[in-house]
Amino acid sequence: MRYDFTFYNPTKIYFGRNAMDNLEAELGNFGDNVLLVYGKASIKKIGLYDKVIKALRNTGKNVTELAGIKSNPTYNQMMEGARLVRENNIDLILAVGGGSVIDCSKAISVSAYCEGDPWQKYWVDFKPLENRVVPVASILTMTGTASEMNAGSVITHEEKMIKEGRVFTPEVNPRFSILNPEFTYSVPKIQMVSGVFDIFSHLMEQYFSGDDNNTSDYVIEGIMKALIDSTRVALESPTDYDARSNIMWCATLALNKIAGVSKTQDWQVHGIEHQIGAYTDCPHGVGLAVVSIPYYRHIYKYGIDKFVRFAENVWGVDSQGKTKDQVALEGIDRLGDFIVELGIPTTLRELGATEEMLRDIAYSIEPGGGYKVVSQDEMYEILRACY
Amino acid sequence: MRYDFTFYNPTKIYFGRNAMDNLEAELGNFGDNVLLVYGKASIKKIGLYDKVIKALRNTGKNVTELAGIKSNPTYNQMMEGARLVRENNIDLILAVGGGSVIDCSKAISVSAYCEGDPWQKYWVDFKPLENRVVPVASILTMTGTASEMNAGSVITHEEKMIKEGRVFTPEVNPRFSILNPEFTYSVPKIQMVSGVFDIFSHLMEQYFSGDDNNTSDYVIEGIMKALIDSTRVALESPTDYDARSNIMWCATLALNKIAGVSKTQDWQVHGIEHQIGAYTDCPHGVGLAVVSIPYYRHIYKYGIDKFVRFAENVWGVDSQGKTKDQVALEGIDRLGDFIVELGIPTTLRELGATEEMLRDIAYSIEPGGGYKVVSQDEMYEILRACY
Repeated sequence: MRYDFTFYNPTKIYFGRNAMDNLEAELGNFGDNVLLVYGKASIKKIGLYDKVIKALRNTGKNVTELAGIKSNPTYNQMMEGARLVRENNIDLILAVGGGSVIDCSKAISVSAYCEGDPWQKYWVDFKPLENRVVPVASILTMTGTASEMNAGSVITHEEKMIKEGRVFTPEVNPRFSILNPEFTYSVPKIQMVSGVFDIFSHLMEQYFSGDDNNTSDYVIEGIMKALIDSTRVALESPTDYDARSNIMWCATLALNKIAGVSKTQDWQVHGIEHQIGAYTDCPHGVGLAVVSIPYYRHIYKYGIDKFVRFAENVWGVDSQGKTKDQVALEGIDRLGDFIVELGIPTTLRELGATEEMLRDIAYSIEPGGGYKVVSQDEMYEILRACY
Repeated sequence: MRYDFTFYNPTKIYFGRNAMDNLEAELGNFGDNVLLVYGKASIKKIGLYDKVIKALRNTGKNVTELAGIKSNPTYNQMMEGARLVRENNIDLILAVGGGSVIDCSKAISVSAYCEGDPWQKYWVDFKPLENRVVPVASILTMTGTASEMNAGSVITHEEKMIKEGRVFTPEVNPRFSILNPEFTYSVPKIQMVSGVFDIFSHLMEQYFSGDDNNTSDYVIEGIMKALIDSTRVALESPTDYDARSNIMWCATLALNKIAGVSKTQDWQVHGIEHQIGAYTDCPHGVGLAVVSIPYYRHIYKYGIDKFVRFAENVWGVDSQGKTKDQVALEGIDRLGDFIVELGIPTTLRELGATEEMLRDIAYSIEPGGGYKVVSQDEMYEILRACY
């Protein structure tokens, strides 16, 4: 095992029903010019927009707005935000929304003072961050990406049809994030379950790779079990505060880097989904769910002991009298059952993909993987299996 | 469930065999005057002292030393350190050692510029921190307290015979901590197992209280299982790098606040042990181990479902055909077996306590507890049960 890492996560989390009470005091730590970034009208519907505007007024801020961030935020939106930051000498980018809005805000943060094309520099060439960044903070309304407590930013370049993620250094992390589970009550069911599967997938991407049996693996299993339990409650009772709280906090823990330290990681399911998303604009978690079962069926033999452990420890599969293959596959079946329980589409067809697209998607994916490097030919096979 | 918390932990962790490579770059972030705090000669024996001095010289620091910090660091040592900080205009307190050395360094940090007696103000009256603090950093050589990634500081007032802990705000956290599991190889076995039980106790103090079944409880169970597995390996092979790495990281996770968010907590075992430590100067984890079994036997009925969960999820107790009481007590028995496996003393007598001390210890403990408020009379009963 490598067990060699740096962990540093300076985001301050305010969690709970009254988390918004901390907003004005936090705003006092930043300069006067705020770029308010959000998506559609939903933050107005739940009254959050008014609360945020009031806090900004009370603290004497000059507010510039950038609205309409898409669920797959785009290169053009990032460039538009970067222009607004420069023109208005922005001191703080305040993201109000889900992962898309926060991801876009981080992209704006690193792009505003970037020399040359930021997309090329940071998302294609993966150059180290070299320009100054503008502080980002977030008020979360949809759970899943953990963007509220990490430095990741996934952006879609529409013309190039590429959705690409980049994890920056912790200076790009939100300085503070406000997490009130009640804000997630009004999220449509498909967005909620998409978020849940996104969280579960983040955990699997870190779990199914490298060496076993270390602290990270046990912690990941714990978060998986908490997520499964709480999701079952939330599906019955969407306004169960404890269940929504658990889901929200599981999401943050799943990708604030604490759960995956010391582990090599996979992320190939995300790699495949990013291209499905670029072609179909499906909700991220739904794309992940569709591709997960055929992907794991394809690779499980290369990490069979871990898939057995997953079946036993996460799903309680009884392995008495069964072969490793049987147990491993039973675990993947249980995962499939959970997807059905979530009510998520299970085929690419349902996401609007056409048969012709499959080849284009497969051959636009970077080959990679945790237990096995999956070639583009194999990717095509996997996509056909879930079409 | 309250599910209402602030989480903020700005300590940067460098973990691994080469973690020391980051020391010089980090030292560059602080001023010229460094107070080097350490315990006994052990850091010289493993060659660490020379490495630290070399890094301090290479970065042009003026070094003041405070050596001989005791395993229960004292009020007098804290006051001596505070004087050194003022006299030498110290910019960074660099703690090299285990939790005692780091705890003492934090106490020095908050005391140096405190008006009035810092013990009275911060450890007795629990006043909010109001003076400036001096940055602390740590190089860890013994694992257990998680002091490397929190703002806790336990100090013993020798004359008053009181050992008292205080958790400060995150500005008192080490700015960075260097964790190389190899530094723990030479720790004597009794210190290693004492550290392991300290970690386990931190987890139980957070676990055995408040509401069940949330994310924190599952995460805590995961850390417990990782710790049990890795300790069994390390007992056989003390230089197994992976096992020592897991123990070290479990220790940090157990008390860097991430595992216990949203939970009411107990900490009564620690409350009892602090007074045992003040009277017998026993290793902290050993005192915890001695008192845990009679304490949990005394309170389990008041949180029986959680003790059943502990037995099943952590120790794999099969509850088929048994009463809740039987399962809960079987879990506590397994915990007792683990203490025996660690080779830790199981009676106060072995720690040098006299029968006359028991009453003095019991009636010097603040009544409290998670599932049940334990009175001083009950405390006396518990102490007699482990004498």
